[in-house]
Amino acid sequence: MSRADKDLLSIQEARILVENARNAQFLVKDYKQSYLDKIINQLIDDITIELAHFVDMEVNETKRGCKKDKEWLLNTFLSQLKKELPNQQCIGELLKDSAGNILKVGVPLGVVVAFPSENNVVLNTLYSLIIGIKSGNSIIIIPDNQAYCTTIHIVNSVKNICEKYGLPVGCITCLESTSESGILEIVTHKNTSMIISAGKITNTTNTQKPMIYGGTGGTPVFIEHTANISNAVQSVIDSRSLDNGMLPGSEQYLIVEQSIASEVKKHFQQKGAHFLSEEEEHQLLNLLQPKNNGINPICVGKNARELAKMAHFSVEESTNILVSEKNYVHELDPFVNEMKCPVIAFYLEPDWMHACEKSIRLLKEKNNGHTIAIHSNNIEVLNQFALKKPVGRMIVNSPSSLASMGIDSTLSISCLLGGLTTGKGISAKNITASDLTYMREISHSIKCVEYTSRVEEESHEKMLEEILRKILA
Amino acid sequence: MSRADKDLLSIQEARILVENARNAQFLVKDYKQSYLDKIINQLIDDITIELAHFVDMEVNETKRGCKKDKEWLLNTFLSQLKKELPNQQCIGELLKDSAGNILKVGVPLGVVVAFPSENNVVLNTLYSLIIGIKSGNSIIIIPDNQAYCTTIHIVNSVKNICEKYGLPVGCITCLESTSESGILEIVTHKNTSMIISAGKITNTTNTQKPMIYGGTGGTPVFIEHTANISNAVQSVIDSRSLDNGMLPGSEQYLIVEQSIASEVKKHFQQKGAHFLSEEEEHQLLNLLQPKNNGINPICVGKNARELAKMAHFSVEESTNILVSEKNYVHELDPFVNEMKCPVIAFYLEPDWMHACEKSIRLLKEKNNGHTIAIHSNNIEVLNQFALKKPVGRMIVNSPSSLASMGIDSTLSISCLLGGLTTGKGISAKNITASDLTYMREISHSIKCVEYTSRVEEESHEKMLEEILRKILA
Repeated sequence: MSRADKDLLSIQEARILVENARNAQFLVKDYKQSYLDKIINQLIDDITIELAHFVDMEVNETKRGCKKDKEWLLNTFLSQLKKELPNQQCIGELLKDSAGNILKVGVPLGVVVAFPSENNVVLNTLYSLIIGIKSGNSIIIIPDNQAYCTTIHIVNSVKNICEKYGLPVGCITCLESTSESGILEIVTHKNTSMIISAGKITNTTNTQKPMIYGGTGGTPVFIEHTANISNAVQSVIDSRSLDNGMLPGSEQYLIVEQSIASEVKKHFQQKGAHFLSEEEEHQLLNLLQPKNNGINPICVGKNARELAKMAHFSVEESTNILVSEKNYVHELDPFVNEMKCPVIAFYLEPDWMHACEKSIRLLKEKNNGHTIAIHSNNIEVLNQFALKKPVGRMIVNSPSSLASMGIDSTLSISCLLGGLTTGKGISAKNITASDLTYMREISHSIKCVEYTSRVEEESHEKMLEEILRKILA
Repeated sequence: MSRADKDLLSIQEARILVENARNAQFLVKDYKQSYLDKIINQLIDDITIELAHFVDMEVNETKRGCKKDKEWLLNTFLSQLKKELPNQQCIGELLKDSAGNILKVGVPLGVVVAFPSENNVVLNTLYSLIIGIKSGNSIIIIPDNQAYCTTIHIVNSVKNICEKYGLPVGCITCLESTSESGILEIVTHKNTSMIISAGKITNTTNTQKPMIYGGTGGTPVFIEHTANISNAVQSVIDSRSLDNGMLPGSEQYLIVEQSIASEVKKHFQQKGAHFLSEEEEHQLLNLLQPKNNGINPICVGKNARELAKMAHFSVEESTNILVSEKNYVHELDPFVNEMKCPVIAFYLEPDWMHACEKSIRLLKEKNNGHTIAIHSNNIEVLNQFALKKPVGRMIVNSPSSLASMGIDSTLSISCLLGGLTTGKGISAKNITASDLTYMREISHSIKCVEYTSRVEEESHEKMLEEILRKILA
């Protein structure tokens, strides 16, 4: 029987990958954290010289984003990750008492299947692989069709490096025949333990597996009158234009307290923002065709000048973002659809707090909010926002696209921003290697005298240390 | 149109419950942790006098379990829970720096739907409601048909008490028309945030929601030669016979190191265990009809004497467990099916470690392992087991059914033993109120000098304090 239909071939490949991954993980589960850390260290060192090439491939294949920004981001992200990872103990012994009894153990889940986003292919693919290795899991990458060649190339490079340094064959793989039936086979296979999706697959597919969803979605940003306006505006512009607006925590809705609105606008104009005329806005919307919480795919990851050109109006060479000025936040506003390009809606509502509420209700209704950003030096306002806003993370006085990923911020470094508050996946936090493990707890009788020894303090101060380390770095 | 089909009525009820729950939660989300704690305190005080009546109802309705044990367990569990809950801060401000900036906030998920187990109805229903209230969620209970009246009665009692003390109407409810379509409506409703199942529903239903599964399943128990044999045996017997063997962490497979096997057997016999003859075992298996990882429902929660009588053989009046002695752990052994009654399989394999491996592989294959128990005073052996065994919790030198729930043990008090390692749900740990929340993290720039203030140490020592508090209590 020489006939082999494409869907069946894909299912066959899926099964082989999962079974090999399970077998490889059976070996890896005996690796020590320090050994895996060493492999990752080598990996980051060896892969760094290939980053420029990876980015080239990505932008050539997807036609999205800015090569320079991507390269800078990757280098920054990986060097910070390299610094942070050795401090994370996620598998093996996590806690011991002074008598030497192990009390908590981190355990890899087994086989993790990851769908990297088609928008930040290199970053997403590398990060998924690194946290998979760090946590002692096997990891299977499912490439997005828009970034197929790049993804396969990256996975193969990482695989070769890691196998050279001691990871077993089968531990890092990539599904090459990506038919729907092959993907379904892989996400429902009994040996698959978890799904990470920053891409198209969501929990509408019944995988019967825990799923972590890396959220995308427009971030509202608030500028309050106590903010350092110049810094705030620079921060929003830098963040929104970075990689042409494709980063998951990037600002999309700007709400400004009325007393400073005109000053904010002036700063925006000085720093390269182009405020759209009514006609230009009309032209831009014709191009973007915003609907169903997305835009015309050919506009994703284009820069402000390119967008203007495609929409047939002209902007200055220095233009970095396009701004639509609006009087009211309104649910029928086309700008409430997610826009992965450097466009911002600037709302001038007189009642600032009311506008904040409304914008957040909108996000909530659109199941689209995982992050908000605020610029303010009023601790009361900051704490009120912290307590009330229904999102997973709040970014204070920083470029949201970077800070939400933990770059120069107190959050954990990660490009997977848990999307629980967008109604998808099981986690709202920045996803790290620990999220790909479970914790085994060891119960000792509190009636037995021999176990009443005082628990080691050091182990418990980890969380403190972690934050301090970042703050004082 | 006066016709109203039962399935549609059930769907209608489901929608109304979820919408009311959402509206009630909209109010509750502004309640402070201390206020909710006060309500729970009052609830536990007021409900305690009704426990005997609840248990009566449960055992009369389900015909399962032992009233005396259930009452004792409920009182013990609730009094320990009452002591522990005030130390858990799960919503609102969780962490602040010394400058007063809030860094972490706990947020209720919204509407939680719970399916209590049909085997520990009072305990499960009360605990689901209490952690729901503690975490600021609305909670909808779906009664199991086997325990329908009891469940509705308990929910109504709790609801009345809590509403008296300030919880809004709609926050605690119970689906009364439990058709399949009504249940499907409720678990897939867009306002439902999470499912807790200790009952029949599992993730084979595509709810598209995070699901916590409270595992059941037989626990293997190992007795190593350094154990205090008399204590170990007493512990296994007490635990296995408690509530006629229905508790989720109850011991089912006993594996003993050969050098002490005959001594262990002697102790078992002295302490009321009945070792089955070949014929009795045959009769018992005819009654239990073990298959598909379960037994004949009429045997669940019957005590040893009742089981013997039903199987037509006689045992002494003092008999508390029935023991099947086996030479080898074997996958076709009918005793590898889960048995919710006081029956134990006693394996005499000469190679102890090998037997352990085999029994665990069996559990793993049957997707049935969330807990193991071990009796040993050899710290090397304990730590080896802690590092290697693929379960969520390991119980040392204690009755597993109690210690796994955190009673007199260092684990968190909970009757929901996360079943991730059984392939169900998203968590392996003892489920507490915090698992019904997500954490909002606030990012401060680590470049801004004003935020480099040292983080309060106290907040970080919570985990330490918690364990110490239990150990030193």
